[in-house]
Amino acid sequence: MSERTEIPARTGWSAKLKEGQSFSVIDVEGGQAADLFVFNAENTDEFLSAQHSRVAEGRVYPEKGWTFVTNERRPILEFTDDTSPGRHDCLAAACDRWRYIQLGGGEDHGSCEQNLQAEAKKHGFEVAHAQQPINVFANFRVYSEDDGRFDLEECVTKPGDAATFKLLMDGIVVLSACPQDIVGFQPGGPTDMAVEVSD
Amino acid sequence: MSERTEIPARTGWSAKLKEGQSFSVIDVEGGQAADLFVFNAENTDEFLSAQHSRVAEGRVYPEKGWTFVTNERRPILEFTDDTSPGRHDCLAAACDRWRYIQLGGGEDHGSCEQNLQAEAKKHGFEVAHAQQPINVFANFRVYSEDDGRFDLEECVTKPGDAATFKLLMDGIVVLSACPQDIVGFQPGGPTDMAVEVSD
Repeated sequence: MSERTEIPARTGWSAKLKEGQSFSVIDVEGGQAADLFVFNAENTDEFLSAQHSRVAEGRVYPEKGWTFVTNERRPILEFTDDTSPGRHDCLAAACDRWRYIQLGGGEDHGSCEQNLQAEAKKHGFEVAHAQQPINVFANFRVYSEDDGRFDLEECVTKPGDAATFKLLMDGIVVLSACPQDIVGFQPGGPTDMAVEVSD
Repeated sequence: MSERTEIPARTGWSAKLKEGQSFSVIDVEGGQAADLFVFNAENTDEFLSAQHSRVAEGRVYPEKGWTFVTNERRPILEFTDDTSPGRHDCLAAACDRWRYIQLGGGEDHGSCEQNLQAEAKKHGFEVAHAQQPINVFANFRVYSEDDGRFDLEECVTKPGDAATFKLLMDGIVVLSACPQDIVGFQPGGPTDMAVEVSD
């Protein structure tokens, strides 16, 4: 059984999922990224941690086959399938209020951090500042041959591309259809995403 | 005026410093790394953030000339001088209790996270889990030509090498002389560090 939900452009989505459940992040129109956060449903101080997952995997680009771990080094999420070109990031911070003020987007521009904060509240907890997200479909690259230059290159997803993840513990999953429309890494501009949850 | 303090191997150090003050992290014997954390002294929910600094600098290896920013994208620390070979990291998580249990080091092995937690308590705040540290003198490398392989290579510092940082706001600075003695990236084994604070 699976259930598909649309995530309108620029907005967030969340659900409490059981260990063993899967969800697919779908880029409906292509060229769009989603910020992904996962918290231990029993203790939201424990969450999927990019910094610990990079060490566990010995790599910096999330890809199919990764087991993401928490800040207590426990497996929380498996990256089980990917129909996209496989470009994902775990190095760039979520966009936030201050980012858009700096970019000239004003005080009222929505952000992935604010989407996360709003979704967390629905589940009864507060997030002061977003931890490093998994930026699904974000094509950000490190050039080690150039002393570690880090570029926010354009998303290369096609319409309908999907990345699928399986919960390895009960978790609260948050997705944000990234509202970035100033730094041009989302060639389609902010568009709708979808998520499909299956048992 | 400057004041030098020894940081015994495996232990932490902290101080509340004023905007404009500087501190040098000194690798006394060479081949040793220190985890660095800085908090806004007025609001410890705001702290030096590696993920935001990577985006601000467009690079992944901290180096002389960097301005580190907080999770509110405000400048907090400048990397003003470096007599070491210049290898520093902001991608690998601090070592913690769970890391040493996984590595077979037992339940009582000290860690940079526990050092941070103990130092934070002295200043009246709690840290549930360490944020991404700046790993001063840690020679961890990304190989983009190999799809983002991330290796914990050996420190290349010589005795007396120093990295100097200047506070851009009043801050609580925490250092941990990394107690890692299982994963062999500290060729000297855990040794003493020193810190020199100047006005």
